[in-house]
Amino acid sequence: MKQFTTLLLAVLSHSVLATNAPKNIIMMVGDGMGPAYTTAYRMYADDPSTPEVEQTVFDRLLVGMASTHPDIVSGFVTDSAAGATALSTGVKSYNGAIGVDTNKKPVQTVLELAKIQGRKTGVAVTSQINHATPASFGSHNESRQNYDQIADSYFDDKTNGQFVLDVMLGGGWKYFIREDRNLVEQFKEAGYQYVDKLSQLSTVSTGTPLLGLFADSGMPWALDSSNQRRLPTLTKAAIRQLENDQGYFLLIEASQVDWAGHSNDIGSAMAEMHDLALTLEWLEQYINENPDTLMVLTADHSTGGLTIGAKGNYSWKPQWLKNLKASPAEIGKQLITVKNKGALASNLLGFELTQEEIASLNVIESDELKPYHKAISKILDGRSDTGWTTSGHTGVDVQIFAKGMGSERFTGHLDNTEIAQTVFELLRDKK
Amino acid sequence: MKQFTTLLLAVLSHSVLATNAPKNIIMMVGDGMGPAYTTAYRMYADDPSTPEVEQTVFDRLLVGMASTHPDIVSGFVTDSAAGATALSTGVKSYNGAIGVDTNKKPVQTVLELAKIQGRKTGVAVTSQINHATPASFGSHNESRQNYDQIADSYFDDKTNGQFVLDVMLGGGWKYFIREDRNLVEQFKEAGYQYVDKLSQLSTVSTGTPLLGLFADSGMPWALDSSNQRRLPTLTKAAIRQLENDQGYFLLIEASQVDWAGHSNDIGSAMAEMHDLALTLEWLEQYINENPDTLMVLTADHSTGGLTIGAKGNYSWKPQWLKNLKASPAEIGKQLITVKNKGALASNLLGFELTQEEIASLNVIESDELKPYHKAISKILDGRSDTGWTTSGHTGVDVQIFAKGMGSERFTGHLDNTEIAQTVFELLRDKK
Repeated sequence: MKQFTTLLLAVLSHSVLATNAPKNIIMMVGDGMGPAYTTAYRMYADDPSTPEVEQTVFDRLLVGMASTHPDIVSGFVTDSAAGATALSTGVKSYNGAIGVDTNKKPVQTVLELAKIQGRKTGVAVTSQINHATPASFGSHNESRQNYDQIADSYFDDKTNGQFVLDVMLGGGWKYFIREDRNLVEQFKEAGYQYVDKLSQLSTVSTGTPLLGLFADSGMPWALDSSNQRRLPTLTKAAIRQLENDQGYFLLIEASQVDWAGHSNDIGSAMAEMHDLALTLEWLEQYINENPDTLMVLTADHSTGGLTIGAKGNYSWKPQWLKNLKASPAEIGKQLITVKNKGALASNLLGFELTQEEIASLNVIESDELKPYHKAISKILDGRSDTGWTTSGHTGVDVQIFAKGMGSERFTGHLDNTEIAQTVFELLRDKK
Repeated sequence: MKQFTTLLLAVLSHSVLATNAPKNIIMMVGDGMGPAYTTAYRMYADDPSTPEVEQTVFDRLLVGMASTHPDIVSGFVTDSAAGATALSTGVKSYNGAIGVDTNKKPVQTVLELAKIQGRKTGVAVTSQINHATPASFGSHNESRQNYDQIADSYFDDKTNGQFVLDVMLGGGWKYFIREDRNLVEQFKEAGYQYVDKLSQLSTVSTGTPLLGLFADSGMPWALDSSNQRRLPTLTKAAIRQLENDQGYFLLIEASQVDWAGHSNDIGSAMAEMHDLALTLEWLEQYINENPDTLMVLTADHSTGGLTIGAKGNYSWKPQWLKNLKASPAEIGKQLITVKNKGALASNLLGFELTQEEIASLNVIESDELKPYHKAISKILDGRSDTGWTTSGHTGVDVQIFAKGMGSERFTGHLDNTEIAQTVFELLRDKK
């Protein structure tokens, strides 16, 4: 029996080692995506012609949950900078911190270690590429507000004598093409391909460094994009560019789930979740075909205090969110100048507004987008029974979703710093 | 190698069978306890003298998450009856259903199967024992509102010629001692011990059926109880009574997390969560000592749209909830008649009220408890940055916590009906 036990242990430990050493690591952040977002998305994506509520890709990949609080100096509710810094470095920091600890000292990120080990590295996000989450993986700064410094650092700071990011896809013209400095030109001179249209991504030559900027700051809302699969497009392009014998590390962020949450805009929230779900479904297939790859998705925090049901109603009605022809923000913009606001809103929302709903638009006297965006979002809240409590973040635990080699290490409850610590271990385990 | 593989498979399958056949099954429901409740409880229970936020028993036991929607006839947001019926029968039903399907036909519950198999059965809850959750495990009725019928059924309906419940602990005098019928006397004549004080539970003789009713309907709030560990007390007494060679099935419910949520009362919500956490900690130890027992805890839904942070504030401040000398409901009751409302509230809340807070009490002109309860809860919301969106339920997924034999079968995402289906399998697996 002892001999058998030894053999069993040998087999098991071999199998543990084998599953602990992914060649490629894809970390994903659904910014602001707490449990109410993934649950609401299941209802939004439900096929009403069947009696059951269909499972989503999030359900298939759920493995655990994570606490998100920042360092106690910032209390119990994190911002995206401290949240991403915890996920990139394994260290709790203050709200606003980009890859630095509470003493503002730079801390090595999982992306940097991957680079030092000879892996290629990249970010693919729907915000500007120097926004809090990608910045916390590829930069170090005492404040997320220092956008120009962070953009500069992507060119100026070197890891092992190399640029830290081989692939950068997202928004950000205004930070990279400035009066005082043209980082796009500098990257091009340094050998990077540069594209500024999503459609160009299919034509770039593979294997070389790539900078793709597709908007002034954040990319347009999913609902307003001509490419209805913008995050899958960025993801596929990034992976095509990064694949190599030494492996890669890629950060993907569905950045604008959070922005929809800040605006208490359930229409955009669901569309951004759909963009992320499509990305996940593609990655699910990719990992089936590339089992030496690990994908781990979490959120940095939840946003807006979204609730499924509100004001005493035991219901949630996503059918009112399914026929939007533009984002509530875009509808709001068009409402500023148009005379027949009810007709325009009815057309773009995909349902006939009531007199009361039209009145809620007509009463606004403003040439600003914000009050109109708010009024349209409130119409959708009323129709769908959606609740919100804040324009900011909340402290609720978020889920962890994982698939591929090493994914079993993210099960159960983890602190967000333990996600990074586990990724560090997986990077170091790889011979 | 083939010989080894066979041996390995034999060992593994033996180990799988062994872990799949618990002798005792303890199902637990934290009524209304969505992810925001367990997260908030971690912050509430945090030791402020240490830099880290300590893990809770919930964190140690987290294994998965569950969807909670009822049958589609009732939309996406469940009530406690349909939620408990899903957890007890594995079948989706309409809101209000007690152990019946959408055709109002009775469906066998896990508790009933356990009874048929020769196990002893019990419920230990802080609501009345004929409330929606326990009723859905031990009764069948087209409506949760038929409280008297449900109470009657505990005596009149037999499973295999026996009473369905060997142990019943909770509230409910008004339903069991009525003008038209005295069920307590009937149970006593049928051989049940009866107690009506928590303190008597330590003196009952073990091994016999037991009825313990400790309140007219629901038990007093944890904050108002002389016994500061009321659910652990009920739990320990129930298990002592149920333990036998054939095993047992016990349903435990922290019923009043939900009631605090309906009242948007964060003070009582945290105290009810603490009562549940103490119960779980005791059960953790019990299962270490009784590894042939399975414990699985989930929620039927979340209540109130609780959020950790509100109104744009990136903070949550549980310190204001830690020194309550009575529940906000009890404080509200005392405020109705007292002259110096500020002094009474300051004393019972454990902090000095501001002039504005006192004014919010003095402005109330009512001899009803409700507006005072509401005002006290609002003071706590303001101090702690707590948000709410509804007096009802919400549709967010809830967590699954498990420990003991078979607990690995509850990992990842499950529908609430799959929790029951898995418990059925575990019951049937036991030889």
